[in-house]
Amino acid sequence: MNKYENGLKIREAVIGKKASQLVSASLADIAPVLDQKTLLAFDEAQRRGVLDLKQREMITITTLLTQGDTAKQLRIHIQGALNVGLTRAEIVETFIHCLPYVGFPRVLNAIAVAKEVFNKN
Amino acid sequence: MNKYENGLKIREAVIGKKASQLVSASLADIAPVLDQKTLLAFDEAQRRGVLDLKQREMITITTLLTQGDTAKQLRIHIQGALNVGLTRAEIVETFIHCLPYVGFPRVLNAIAVAKEVFNKN
Amino acid sequence: MNKYENGLKIREAVIGKKASQLVSASLADIAPVLDQKTLLAFDEAQRRGVLDLKQREMITITTLLTQGDTAKQLRIHIQGALNVGLTRAEIVETFIHCLPYVGFPRVLNAIAVAKEVFNKN
Amino acid sequence: MNKYENGLKIREAVIGKKASQLVSASLADIAPVLDQKTLLAFDEAQRRGVLDLKQREMITITTLLTQGDTAKQLRIHIQGALNVGLTRAEIVETFIHCLPYVGFPRVLNAIAVAKEVFNKN
Amino acid sequence: MNKYENGLKIREAVIGKKASQLVSASLADIAPVLDQKTLLAFDEAQRRGVLDLKQREMITITTLLTQGDTAKQLRIHIQGALNVGLTRAEIVETFIHCLPYVGFPRVLNAIAVAKEVFNKN
Amino acid sequence: MNKYENGLKIREAVIGKKASQLVSASLADIAPVLDQKTLLAFDEAQRRGVLDLKQREMITITTLLTQGDTAKQLRIHIQGALNVGLTRAEIVETFIHCLPYVGFPRVLNAIAVAKEVFNKN
Repeated sequence: MNKYENGLKIREAVIGKKASQLVSASLADIAPVLDQKTLLAFDEAQRRGVLDLKQREMITITTLLTQGDTAKQLRIHIQGALNVGLTRAEIVETFIHCLPYVGFPRVLNAIAVAKEVFNKN
Repeated sequence: MNKYENGLKIREAVIGKKASQLVSASLADIAPVLDQKTLLAFDEAQRRGVLDLKQREMITITTLLTQGDTAKQLRIHIQGALNVGLTRAEIVETFIHCLPYVGFPRVLNAIAVAKEVFNKN
Repeated sequence: MNKYENGLKIREAVIGKKASQLVSASLADIAPVLDQKTLLAFDEAQRRGVLDLKQREMITITTLLTQGDTAKQLRIHIQGALNVGLTRAEIVETFIHCLPYVGFPRVLNAIAVAKEVFNKN
Repeated sequence: MNKYENGLKIREAVIGKKASQLVSASLADIAPVLDQKTLLAFDEAQRRGVLDLKQREMITITTLLTQGDTAKQLRIHIQGALNVGLTRAEIVETFIHCLPYVGFPRVLNAIAVAKEVFNKN
Repeated sequence: MNKYENGLKIREAVIGKKASQLVSASLADIAPVLDQKTLLAFDEAQRRGVLDLKQREMITITTLLTQGDTAKQLRIHIQGALNVGLTRAEIVETFIHCLPYVGFPRVLNAIAVAKEVFNKN
Repeated sequence: MNKYENGLKIREAVIGKKASQLVSASLADIAPVLDQKTLLAFDEAQRRGVLDLKQREMITITTLLTQGDTAKQLRIHIQGALNVGLTRAEIVETFIHCLPYVGFPRVLNAIAVAKEVFNKN
């Protein structure tokens, strides 16, 4: 299994097969190189092997919450966080923990996306 | 032990007694309410009890890296991450994991602070 | 009247009773602690008493405009600015004053929200 | 031709007559000074004359991608980039070139807007 | 008195004659147009006349605090805020009021600059 | 010549051999994977071949200016911009062109770095 195949396997395990296919489809005709690069990112994070999938998704949703204008990405990775085994309480607490560092607007935006994702599960 | 005393105990455990005193001293004459509020933040995170100290520091250094212009705070919390038991490899990997989400400048700035903190330990 | 009750009274006076109830309702089942914390923020700002409500809302809409990805929060606090007695001209001028510091995109986004809020009043 | 007339001529050449009129219309009753100021920006950039229109739009879409929460402005300036002669491949490559500096979320958001604009042309 | 002269007069009144000269000197050989443009910004804000100087400086230090990486500009405008008559307590409270919206790092960075400026007065 | 060797060749051509060695040295003991990844970024940008080196450095300094807290990276890439043939006037105009989109603080910070770099050449 080469690094792209391995990256795909992990991306599917994290964000789900359907979301993974949507990423590929959305980039296929305009910037397929970006799809390839996301696969590499998933492959490499696993190969380095220092952090487990739960830790990686916890970091991912934290950085997405913090930078703002990432509702789309948060939607995918909050589902990803659930998929790799983080509980709803852990996801919400991750966001609440960010409050003293980033303030209410970023945190409440992320909570609103979490609510939407939780309601679909 | 009231919430301020408990917050102080945890703040000292995380960032170290000396750094904790420096925070208080820097705010004492200009905005002591901000010092009190950081104590509450440490107290409340522990009372909610959903995440352990390692997870909380991992989230903290991630959000600091992401927002930028936080070298001072990263210095304190990378030391904090070491203090609560995260390894150097875990701290560095946390930063590397952010690369696909925030790009090189934020990550390299955080790595430079980590290097400085590691060299003092 | 305890600090939560006082915070609620001020939050209702600033953003309106209906918006205040929507905030509570949106957080009730997922992160009620965040609702409580916004009440404390309103309570504490008033207790410190250094700035009046108009000044506080002027600062609030400025910081929201500046950080971006805050259309939801701007909608609430532009209405809040009107509720505490800032005129439309003062709100618009607050945004225009930010132009040299943040550029057109942030300012025009805020103006678009202001237009929407003004049209509902 | 005064500087406002010249600014209008260039703004129309870059973003198109219809989009230019929409900008004016959206600001006419709330903050007409901002409309005037965008005209001056277009006028002055041309008068300084150091960079050509293609370079200016390449810089513009780069800064918009980077700051985030600028979908509206990107929509206008990706069309502007096409109008002044940048190819689709150059626009997409501009965004891909930003990836190492800003990460996936900002780049994928800009690519999504580009896709939408390209589909209308 | 033309608009540049008026802008200079106000800039000197706000940030002080010495700081105003330093701005001009720093831009004289590399980008004098930027110096001219800051003069226009000061002139125009006054001509529109909706907000007084205290309100304008309060907005300015708020937007600077919020965007980060603005220690230099905060240094100038915290002094400016004092020059136009805001008290130390009002400046500090402006920063504290931002806490729920932007979090500790931005606020503590601004407080540190304020402390430095206050100590020079 | 493999992709790392090619990346190194281009990185040296852009930022200079000495700066390239400093990047490697700064990462060698803490996160060598990040050094490897910057080489790949330089290699890939050239292989895609859509934009020339001048355009790529123009985009790079624009995105660095915009995100803030990037003085270190701007120092390297303003020198890089000179190395690939952009004139001082083009670099300064790139920054001035960003003014309407990002405001004075980001632009003046970048100008200050440019001045420092120009003075060393």
